[in-house]
Amino acid sequence: MERSTVSNISIPAGAGSLSAGAGVTVVPGGVTAPAGFRTAGVHCGIKARAGALDLALIVADAPASAAGAFTISKAAAAPVLVSKAHLASTYGKARAIVVNSGCANACTGDAGHKVAELMTAETARAVGCEAEEVLVASTGVIGVSLDPRTVTSGIIAAHDALSRSANADAARAIMTTDPFPKEHAIRVETAAGTYHVGGMCKGSGMIEPMLATMLGFVTTDAVVAPAMLQRALLDTCETTFNAITVDGECSTNDTVFALASGASGVVIDEAGYDAFVEALRAVCRELAMGIVRGGEGATKLITVQVTGARTYDDARRAARAIANSLLVKTAIHGGDPNWGRLVAVAGRCGAAFELSGARVTIGDIVLFEHGRPFDERASQAAAYLQGKDIRVAVDLGTDGREDATMWTCDLSADYVKINAEYRT
Amino acid sequence: MERSTVSNISIPAGAGSLSAGAGVTVVPGGVTAPAGFRTAGVHCGIKARAGALDLALIVADAPASAAGAFTISKAAAAPVLVSKAHLASTYGKARAIVVNSGCANACTGDAGHKVAELMTAETARAVGCEAEEVLVASTGVIGVSLDPRTVTSGIIAAHDALSRSANADAARAIMTTDPFPKEHAIRVETAAGTYHVGGMCKGSGMIEPMLATMLGFVTTDAVVAPAMLQRALLDTCETTFNAITVDGECSTNDTVFALASGASGVVIDEAGYDAFVEALRAVCRELAMGIVRGGEGATKLITVQVTGARTYDDARRAARAIANSLLVKTAIHGGDPNWGRLVAVAGRCGAAFELSGARVTIGDIVLFEHGRPFDERASQAAAYLQGKDIRVAVDLGTDGREDATMWTCDLSADYVKINAEYRT
Repeated sequence: MERSTVSNISIPAGAGSLSAGAGVTVVPGGVTAPAGFRTAGVHCGIKARAGALDLALIVADAPASAAGAFTISKAAAAPVLVSKAHLASTYGKARAIVVNSGCANACTGDAGHKVAELMTAETARAVGCEAEEVLVASTGVIGVSLDPRTVTSGIIAAHDALSRSANADAARAIMTTDPFPKEHAIRVETAAGTYHVGGMCKGSGMIEPMLATMLGFVTTDAVVAPAMLQRALLDTCETTFNAITVDGECSTNDTVFALASGASGVVIDEAGYDAFVEALRAVCRELAMGIVRGGEGATKLITVQVTGARTYDDARRAARAIANSLLVKTAIHGGDPNWGRLVAVAGRCGAAFELSGARVTIGDIVLFEHGRPFDERASQAAAYLQGKDIRVAVDLGTDGREDATMWTCDLSADYVKINAEYRT
Repeated sequence: MERSTVSNISIPAGAGSLSAGAGVTVVPGGVTAPAGFRTAGVHCGIKARAGALDLALIVADAPASAAGAFTISKAAAAPVLVSKAHLASTYGKARAIVVNSGCANACTGDAGHKVAELMTAETARAVGCEAEEVLVASTGVIGVSLDPRTVTSGIIAAHDALSRSANADAARAIMTTDPFPKEHAIRVETAAGTYHVGGMCKGSGMIEPMLATMLGFVTTDAVVAPAMLQRALLDTCETTFNAITVDGECSTNDTVFALASGASGVVIDEAGYDAFVEALRAVCRELAMGIVRGGEGATKLITVQVTGARTYDDARRAARAIANSLLVKTAIHGGDPNWGRLVAVAGRCGAAFELSGARVTIGDIVLFEHGRPFDERASQAAAYLQGKDIRVAVDLGTDGREDATMWTCDLSADYVKINAEYRT
């Protein structure tokens, strides 16, 4: 598996800490909480509904270090291909990111590729930089063409609207079926000085009326070399955006970008790397949780913890299988403490599994251990499942000690309804 | 991947023919259509509802060749373990199969293993054979104990009821959430003489209120050596029971048994092997289609055909990914000719895929080819999707020519409702 993926990678052992360490304070401002960035979100007409924001810009005051993580799809959309090429040709530098919602610009052939290039060129013209210094992302319906004049007018309008305080508009302008915008930012105080990490993302399932996407944008004013920023972004994705699933689908357009302006003057070197990754992770985990909480039809956030695995791959495989199991997701939706389904998925997923040593826990309630059920605790577990924040844990019972965590949501009839409706 | 599995194996190239060849006639009688077998289905009280059939016997007049295919689950239930051991110790001979529904006897520890052994011993005592000559299968709730006295009384009652005409009772006695019983039988006329193949199965998803199972039972009066019967059964499962999916789940109890009484006197040798497998396949495919048509909440049967794959594994992987995609299944449920979802799944599933050469067909309507959509055909495809029997095809666009077929059903809100309800 490539490392430069957004999906199908899970969380490494021990990375489940929810604290980003001392000296971390949540702040407002989203992607403009770090110094050196302006943003905007405008309506230019890609979405039919009047006033619906559908184009966002993030612009750095000066060339910033840039990193990207992309879909593993072999049907990757034009903006993914263009952004990959630009990151390669600049060796990880960018001035701006242009994003549209309402159209994925995927499966659109040469014409689509030209529009993605045009979006970077028009943004570059407005900002005053090279087209290669602009990254692009799109989300929305597959196979529909993006009108060049519409996006060009949007880019000009968004550039005119750039500000340090338009982060909420930008977060709305990248939404598709998302029930709410997702932003998060922190201030990190270190011995070397204070810097910020901010971000926004969209995603609600991997899907939109036709198909959609997970997009994430993270900024920092720390001084981070491009190669280190790329490494930090991939390390972070593994335990955040790659450790969530709504429906097991990976889009043609999945993209996460990170930009480092350096405006704080705080240099991230190898000594400060772990703390920086922890800060990135704090922001990305909050954003990723937002995607799951806002998953199509979701009513509960489910944390799946797997322990007692012989290898990390086994732990990841079991956690992913449980998080994607329709039987587990429907049981939790219905408030049914159905430990048998967890055993069945763990047993069939291909990971090493020893029934006699296995343990199933819902909340803190052990329902299966030492080869036997504890059904007398079922009503207690059923009461726990009435909550909105659910934790299920399976120990695979092997002689190994590897573990992994995934986050998912329950599966409701509303998910089916949302995804069965004809595109309009 | 082990060959002796019931799930997670798909159909080989070219095996999609629906005809079992000349000289094949569909006949009534299910598992007793072949000579040399009697069967029964009774109510003994495992299911609470008065009169609900919950125990079945299939008894051969004399020791029969026997073969089995079992779940790959590492949490395999007691009856699976006992049946595997019996088949091994007899080198593929059996007189009887005892089956109960309403309780899976899975995750029930040593006590559960003893009850599974008891079921074979009590059946052997009634029939007059060794316990090792009896195979056992169970389906129903996991983690619930099976009462030894209840099943013993059921076995005695079922033995008293054995007949050549109780096949419909037996087919009902193995059901759990199945909306209808599933039986099929054929007469095969060959130059060497006439023989029969019959069968019954259950399954509705892989699931029941707590969890359930796919069980299949196939009989023939051909003379088939145990080793050949085993090979024929596995070859058949690959393209029938293993080529269907309702929800991607594999149970702790999945089992398919085949018994050959030899009562027709028609000997299956290597020359007749292919025709025999084709006959087995005709029966098992019909049974497997029944499972999909009766899948929980299902309203449509979906045939997924993948062509243009570089390897058979790629073809199988893509077909399985499409057949299990919530986005594809909900789109078809909603009558949405959403070819973008098919491209997206084919692109992300890991199989070699070339977008420029890819083709998506719904029914006979090509919606994507040569890198561009044909949206003007969408309304025609939407009309086609109003049917109950849906075919979708994806050519992966590579330079390879491998193909695979899977069968699945759509995903409806009723599926969620069925599986979210608390066990009662």
